Amino acid sequence: QKTEKMDGIVQGYDAPHANLFPLSNYSFNLKSPRIEKDKSVTERFERMKRMYDEQGRLNSVDGVLIMHQHNHPHVLLLRIGTTFYKLPGGRLKPGEDDISGLKRKLNNKLAPEGQELDWEIGDLMCNYWRPHFDATQLPYVPPHVTKPKECRKIFFVHMPESAEIFVPRNLNLIAVPIFELFENSRCYGPLIASIPLLLGRYNFNYIP
Amino acid sequence: QKTEKMDGIVQGYDAPHANLFPLSNYSFNLKSPRIEKDKSVTERFERMKRMYDEQGRLNSVDGVLIMHQHNHPHVLLLRIGTTFYKLPGGRLKPGEDDISGLKRKLNNKLAPEGQELDWEIGDLMCNYWRPHFDATQLPYVPPHVTKPKECRKIFFVHMPESAEIFVPRNLNLIAVPIFELFENSRCYGPLIASIPLLLGRYNFNYIP
Ligand SMILES: [Zn+2]
Ligand SMILES: [Zn+2]
Ligand SMILES: [Zn+2]
Ligand SMILES: [Zn+2]
Repeated sequence: QKTEKMDGIVQGYDAPHANLFPLSNYSFNLKSPRIEKDKSVTERFERMKRMYDEQGRLNSVDGVLIMHQHNHPHVLLLRIGTTFYKLPGGRLKPGEDDISGLKRKLNNKLAPEGQELDWEIGDLMCNYWRPHFDATQLPYVPPHVTKPKECRKIFFVHMPESAEIFVPRNLNLIAVPIFELFENSRCYGPLIASIPLLLGRYNFNYIP
Repeated sequence: QKTEKMDGIVQGYDAPHANLFPLSNYSFNLKSPRIEKDKSVTERFERMKRMYDEQGRLNSVDGVLIMHQHNHPHVLLLRIGTTFYKLPGGRLKPGEDDISGLKRKLNNKLAPEGQELDWEIGDLMCNYWRPHFDATQLPYVPPHVTKPKECRKIFFVHMPESAEIFVPRNLNLIAVPIFELFENSRCYGPLIASIPLLLGRYNFNYIP
């Protein structure tokens, strides 16, 4: 709880610590593709509306997975095609809890086929709310919105020290330095571009 | 630590809770002016450089003080002149700890003359780093920077349930809704515009 000094950097009051391992501790392999459920953006919001009408508010979870390279934190992103980026994660099943759902989604996207990796889910970093059936997601519920359509929770995920990662062959997994993401919603969208800010309270420990 | 339900909203894993009181619980009064130390932006960075040469890295602390109005969180900002906004806070004295320094600064700007208010300092929300003697502040240390010139820590401050606030008469204290700050660096600067994101993990309890 109290301030302390470590490596010449004054540590914060309640600042979470996290160990980051080098990118070279992980191997990246391919597995069978994961078929996208929606063929277009319109189809995506139509399906979202049907699910909402059946189940009520939708809940999604995303994971921020970090490693270090060149003494700087890098975030794992999935690239679909050449220009669309997303965090590993996805929508919860009705009644599923955040933590089991996020582990299921991370294994589906990143674990060897039919296996599980040892993910340790950390702090909730942000709640993003979707007020309407469209692309806008906000870190608060606007005053005029009484029934947001979706809540997306962004969790810090502590990586295992090393791992063999398996990525569906229709996706690309890339590690992007946080200085490249910062204020870069044009390339990465506003949610991913906000990650460097949301990481600003962490004290990272770069394990060699 | 576990997920729980409250008021129909699914609460987060490790999401901090905070009580917000209505804006009308606080009274706003005037006190003697606080003289600005620098006459110009140039003078400001020159003085910063002199202090750095004497003391080493500078440390600043800012407080995010929140109340509710119209069922939405509002952040207290100090306005200097008509267009410059800042959070209450300021630079620490050499060796001063974050928490005492922030309380001293909050009392200087917001307490009755010669008195102290009952501030409860909460979580560190973000570290902002100043790589050079200029206006740029970032939520991370860029890879090429070995000696950042200043670290500014943004703390959540739990307001007392009610208070008589006294503001120096050369400053204006305003309560701005977070939807107005979001993505609005043009009006408020990038640091204040980032506050809605940094608050996105909190569960606020609006006390009537
Ligand atoms: Zn790199
Ligand atoms: Zn709307
Ligand atoms: Zn208002
Ligand atoms: Zn630089």
